[in-house]
Amino acid sequence: MDWNQTVAADLSAVRAKRPLVHSITNYVVMNTNANALLALGASPIMAHALEEVEELVALSGALVLNIGTLSAPWIESMFKAGLAARARHVPVVLDPVGAGASRLRTETARNLMTQVRPAILRGNASEILALGGDAASGARGVDAQHTVAQARQAALGIARAFGMTVAVTGAEDYVTDGRREARISNGHALMSRVTGTGCTASALTGAFAAVAADAFQAAVSTLVVFGLAGEWAARQANRPGTYGIALIDGLDALTPDDVRVGARVVVGPAECQ
Amino acid sequence: MDWNQTVAADLSAVRAKRPLVHSITNYVVMNTNANALLALGASPIMAHALEEVEELVALSGALVLNIGTLSAPWIESMFKAGLAARARHVPVVLDPVGAGASRLRTETARNLMTQVRPAILRGNASEILALGGDAASGARGVDAQHTVAQARQAALGIARAFGMTVAVTGAEDYVTDGRREARISNGHALMSRVTGTGCTASALTGAFAAVAADAFQAAVSTLVVFGLAGEWAARQANRPGTYGIALIDGLDALTPDDVRVGARVVVGPAECQ
Amino acid sequence: MDWNQTVAADLSAVRAKRPLVHSITNYVVMNTNANALLALGASPIMAHALEEVEELVALSGALVLNIGTLSAPWIESMFKAGLAARARHVPVVLDPVGAGASRLRTETARNLMTQVRPAILRGNASEILALGGDAASGARGVDAQHTVAQARQAALGIARAFGMTVAVTGAEDYVTDGRREARISNGHALMSRVTGTGCTASALTGAFAAVAADAFQAAVSTLVVFGLAGEWAARQANRPGTYGIALIDGLDALTPDDVRVGARVVVGPAECQ
Repeated sequence: MDWNQTVAADLSAVRAKRPLVHSITNYVVMNTNANALLALGASPIMAHALEEVEELVALSGALVLNIGTLSAPWIESMFKAGLAARARHVPVVLDPVGAGASRLRTETARNLMTQVRPAILRGNASEILALGGDAASGARGVDAQHTVAQARQAALGIARAFGMTVAVTGAEDYVTDGRREARISNGHALMSRVTGTGCTASALTGAFAAVAADAFQAAVSTLVVFGLAGEWAARQANRPGTYGIALIDGLDALTPDDVRVGARVVVGPAECQ
Repeated sequence: MDWNQTVAADLSAVRAKRPLVHSITNYVVMNTNANALLALGASPIMAHALEEVEELVALSGALVLNIGTLSAPWIESMFKAGLAARARHVPVVLDPVGAGASRLRTETARNLMTQVRPAILRGNASEILALGGDAASGARGVDAQHTVAQARQAALGIARAFGMTVAVTGAEDYVTDGRREARISNGHALMSRVTGTGCTASALTGAFAAVAADAFQAAVSTLVVFGLAGEWAARQANRPGTYGIALIDGLDALTPDDVRVGARVVVGPAECQ
Repeated sequence: MDWNQTVAADLSAVRAKRPLVHSITNYVVMNTNANALLALGASPIMAHALEEVEELVALSGALVLNIGTLSAPWIESMFKAGLAARARHVPVVLDPVGAGASRLRTETARNLMTQVRPAILRGNASEILALGGDAASGARGVDAQHTVAQARQAALGIARAFGMTVAVTGAEDYVTDGRREARISNGHALMSRVTGTGCTASALTGAFAAVAADAFQAAVSTLVVFGLAGEWAARQANRPGTYGIALIDGLDALTPDDVRVGARVVVGPAECQ
């Protein structure tokens, strides 16, 4: 399988199909994520009312659940939307923002994993370690305290236990579905200086999940494309304010040819355990 | 009536009077809309607490109700604020984001129209069709699936039934109060690539409603000015991230002379029915 | 005491220690404030759930409470987080957005002052006048209607009555802890054309409160650094959209040497009364 070609085709598919991506996400990133989805070529909708999430899930190509500023009524809506998505085979992406930093976040993420069975879990290394059962993950907020390599076993464990794809983002990104592993080295250090780039990765994963052949491929395509947008942005801006805006531009600027030339992804079988 | 002159005078009036515009709006656009109002020359306040909306309406030149991320407690506040505004003759602008995409949105918008009697309803073509009684409007999210021309009869019907001004925005904008029709061809295609530009149009309509002679004039002035800001922005930026920021700059840059020269608006009597 | 040197050292300390700043703040500024904290070198977390605020306060170097879009459940969380912070000696910054414009805002701010005893209160002149007991403060929204000089006696009164530092921001900023007074003349007029710059000042105050010797010093350091970032931004941009983005860049660009050279702060003993 030629992954550079596959990712390029997925990017074309997002732009051709313009999937509606329903997000129940945090207040910090709503504007940024809606703009990122639009720039990529998808169509965003943000909606959390218990009375309407089932109807909107039914219209959507994917559902993104992000616990970044969670509270009791929002959690209730996440479960309702997530279960409706599961029933309709709408792929669900879960972003466990801050898992490990509070019991509420860790438990909500775990309960969503168990009950909603998301197709894809996308987090930073500390979050994946916290969810992989490492009680001593030492999360101290929403920024990662660990390297992606440290989270690899936890990611494999979650992928196999839940039958889901796990994406761990950082300096190098790691994706596994328990059988395969991908390492993506696209991206730029400035991405971590902009708030919510992890959340943006999750939102974009929703767009790719709506068009890709499977969840593993969706996660890989997202992280290559977003990483390349990050590289594009670094050629326009070198400070975090202007860089964050250039990142949106990059999602618009990137062509399938740019992807074929620039993708740096290695995929192989996951180790036996 | 020289509409280019009228719109230019309305822009000057907003800058001279700096009206306070109270918004109960969606999370996605709060920052953008506050910045747009400030750039135009108005003063924004975002407040939704049931305990304070009546007091704030009493200080305000206009009230903007936007159902983009509605939920039960926010709807309650919209009605309380809206009824207080009606009682005090503070003009109300309603943005029925996503009407047609869920029952909650369609019904909330209709109930606000009936009970609050907004001065101005501003939506995209799919939303206006959904509210004009077309059950088969086929809205599939918050982005329009119809052309403005398709929504003309629905807009006229709403304007006449409710005695309000209806503004339908799209490639060409359409405004009617049931007696008059305006078509505004200012604007730029990139505006639809930035999240919440429709919501921004509604927020700016609040500023103009606070100073213009009547609701129809306020809607026309808004869409000319915002369209010209969109054209200004397209001379600074050609991708959606930087374009969205340039759009704010454009609201600041635009002069009454720019309006007199650049406005492209045609106003005439509405057809008999 | 060489204040230019002190502020430069505080900036270095923020970047070295990268304090976690927990904010319970308004929807309008969450993204902007998170980006400002990241650009400065701190680590933001936004969280308001009653179930988790105590845990997060325990991880944090400072807590910022901002009532800009307050509602009953958020107020409850502010008290819970604030009392937890007080018990753990985590410094609290209070931003009384819109105090004077509604009873809910004035009373909530006063109750937080009385019960939580924030280390620092940061507001505009109208807000400080409203909280200093001037019932006729005439606030008409969230933008200041008064000069900083008019609020000086109110600030001194609050500082002495509550034993807290009060920072009043405007064309010239004023800081007092009741014994000392500082006047900071860094900054730029465009800062007031961007929504939430006052809130950003409060967020950044959290970062400095986590590292500075005392609350007065934290407030002075913040306003010098933010003012210099505002001057830096004015060399990049002259309209509010691009200026707001450049302001984030400025927080990243500023070096301790820039601070030593550029700080314009005068500190002296407060007058007897």
